[in-house]
Amino acid sequence: MTFYKSTVAYDGTDFQGFQRLGTSQRTVQGALEAGLRRIGWTGSSLTAAGRTDGGVHARGQVVAFELEWRHDCVSLTHALNSRLPSDVAIWHTEVAPQGFHPRFSARSRRYSYALIASPQPDPLRERYAWRVWPRPDLAAMQEEASILPGRRDFAAFGRAPIPGGHTNRTVLTARWDGLGDRMEFVIEADAFLQHMVRRIVAALIGVGLGRKTPGVLQDLLDHPGGRWEGPMAPARGLCLEAVTYEQDAGGAAASAEQGA
Amino acid sequence: MTFYKSTVAYDGTDFQGFQRLGTSQRTVQGALEAGLRRIGWTGSSLTAAGRTDGGVHARGQVVAFELEWRHDCVSLTHALNSRLPSDVAIWHTEVAPQGFHPRFSARSRRYSYALIASPQPDPLRERYAWRVWPRPDLAAMQEEASILPGRRDFAAFGRAPIPGGHTNRTVLTARWDGLGDRMEFVIEADAFLQHMVRRIVAALIGVGLGRKTPGVLQDLLDHPGGRWEGPMAPARGLCLEAVTYEQDAGGAAASAEQGA
Repeated sequence: MTFYKSTVAYDGTDFQGFQRLGTSQRTVQGALEAGLRRIGWTGSSLTAAGRTDGGVHARGQVVAFELEWRHDCVSLTHALNSRLPSDVAIWHTEVAPQGFHPRFSARSRRYSYALIASPQPDPLRERYAWRVWPRPDLAAMQEEASILPGRRDFAAFGRAPIPGGHTNRTVLTARWDGLGDRMEFVIEADAFLQHMVRRIVAALIGVGLGRKTPGVLQDLLDHPGGRWEGPMAPARGLCLEAVTYEQDAGGAAASAEQGA
Repeated sequence: MTFYKSTVAYDGTDFQGFQRLGTSQRTVQGALEAGLRRIGWTGSSLTAAGRTDGGVHARGQVVAFELEWRHDCVSLTHALNSRLPSDVAIWHTEVAPQGFHPRFSARSRRYSYALIASPQPDPLRERYAWRVWPRPDLAAMQEEASILPGRRDFAAFGRAPIPGGHTNRTVLTARWDGLGDRMEFVIEADAFLQHMVRRIVAALIGVGLGRKTPGVLQDLLDHPGGRWEGPMAPARGLCLEAVTYEQDAGGAAASAEQGA
């Protein structure tokens, strides 16, 4: 038996999230495990870097599993891909380092959130982006996001994955980019609280639309007990882009290349 | 009653083509007519520029219908969009010119065909493109496509829409563009035979992959009774981009702007 690490991409639209829930629900984990079983996997559960919600996409989810496989990692990727539905795919497989765990060994996660600033519904683009109109002010959102990097208590934007767990997280980068009617927010942190990115994006867009006062993020983070009471940005704009590990040569850059 | 002309966009994946077939099949026409009925339409059938196949997308389909409507065209577009499923949308509505018919008044149609040249399955891009590997030679496909413009008998690439109808068509432009791993073929003609674009694309890619001899298109078009015996490119890469009319100021350019 060898322990493998795979990078996984998926269109989350038709999945009820990553985590296997039961036989009646379609999940990414369920699809991956069914594919693995067809090439001889006898495990009970694969492990993953993050449990993305229903509708959230990924280009850089990381999973690990033990398997008896007589060929190389490239042929394992191909064998598995030919047994997966069209909305999930393995992008890379390697032998996992000693003691590797996709979640606990992770040093950081990077998510993107895609917006389309347009008054016009677009059936060919809204599967992977949130359409917003009027056009949010990109510079105002950029300015508001610039206070995010650093270690802070993010309780205002989500709850701990384990009851009673702490809510301190370290944001490494948070920036907006825009081209034409498309805007993208990229945020990297050591880890995220549940729904944290979607709440932060909603707050930033609130500022970009002039519906929230600039400084709202700082205020919520500075006040103990502060809580974002507004809505969450919808799942379809969110994508798990990469998970980085201590042992990655070049860190985030190496993960980005896998997905390129 | 006023006669309206609307530009329609759709994600064709979950439709069994444009044309209404029966109550059990999901079609774009069926979805549009159901939406129209909810704002008071009492017609029996709308008219459309083209009957796209199942899985084919559109950013520039054109439909026409008679409706009693007391407000302006922008509010008609909004009212209709709020009653359509998320995979179909109206992009523009105007009062149709006297004697207008979306199909018979059309001067030309423009289609795009999107390719991804990659060995790696991509669940987030393959809904709207055909993935091909190895990488086709863009210059060879460009060269092969350059013989297409002009009036010719295209019987080798499709049959007439009406039994016994002629198969002469005038191709106005046919060109490939590429950026990174993405390639796009754009073809405009007065009209197309059924499956003509998907067969031409398959032949061009055959040349681009070195599996067909350069000049294969010219040979098939020059020989009476010649027929493309290879496969068709799959529907998901194909998109009806625009239909142009005599009365359009600026022709193709005006239609392109609607979709921008």
